[in-house]
Amino acid sequence: MEHVISCLVENKSGVLSRVAGLFSGRGYNIDTLCVAPTQDANVSRMTIVCRGDDRIIEQIIKQLNKLIDVIKVTDMTAEEHVERELVLIKVACTAATRADIIQLVNVFRARIIDVDLKTLTVEVVGDSRKVEALIELMRSFGIRELVRTGRVAILRG
Amino acid sequence: MEHVISCLVENKSGVLSRVAGLFSGRGYNIDTLCVAPTQDANVSRMTIVCRGDDRIIEQIIKQLNKLIDVIKVTDMTAEEHVERELVLIKVACTAATRADIIQLVNVFRARIIDVDLKTLTVEVVGDSRKVEALIELMRSFGIRELVRTGRVAILRG
Repeated sequence: MEHVISCLVENKSGVLSRVAGLFSGRGYNIDTLCVAPTQDANVSRMTIVCRGDDRIIEQIIKQLNKLIDVIKVTDMTAEEHVERELVLIKVACTAATRADIIQLVNVFRARIIDVDLKTLTVEVVGDSRKVEALIELMRSFGIRELVRTGRVAILRG
Repeated sequence: MEHVISCLVENKSGVLSRVAGLFSGRGYNIDTLCVAPTQDANVSRMTIVCRGDDRIIEQIIKQLNKLIDVIKVTDMTAEEHVERELVLIKVACTAATRADIIQLVNVFRARIIDVDLKTLTVEVVGDSRKVEALIELMRSFGIRELVRTGRVAILRG
């Protein structure tokens, strides 16, 4: 099953490699990861998305909790939460296809953030389903570059 | 100086801890990090934002290039590029302040993605200056939770 783990850590050098080591030590790959400061500059949040056996993920969460620089770990999967991801897509375009692409971008409430003669760069935010749907549509025009942040999550209410 | 490093890597277990180790081994902290797949599911992109001595960052980039699972490293700082970050802000609100908050959210072209009696959750996308400005404004109402993806970057044109 897929898990979204939100992990508050001390904003210190070395924490990231210790956390990453817990996953790689079990041969577990992280699908996406976001690390950034919180409202307290001394505390960073890691949002980790990974798939795997529930029992093993539970073990990893226990190990995370034992790390000295880890403040709090929440498995968001079990909680009511909102997920979002930001994706930048550089898509090939010609004079003939530009209007079609712009129309699709508008349907998705996405934004065009850069244009030149041969490409459009699109910024889209949403849950996985929405961003994957736009990426699929853009594939038919030719994706030149795809930059994703990975998913973040926040508890409801 | 601040550097934004975009790093294409094989999507394999263990790569992240090796990359993180290069930074922590020098006592260098990563400010923000995004890791997610690209249009090729076998290849992930890491976007690393860090500050430090240019000479040492240059050394780190050389070391990154030597890692077997690293495909390509670009220091975006030297190139024409667009940066974006996604931030979710859960802000305290009352019947008296709700309208003020919504007004500010609209000015920033941000979106409200969750509401309850005591909080509003806001989604905002932009460059550092824009998102920092909204975070500062929201601080006066009381930030309950702040979830940032960290910055991603894409080359222009």
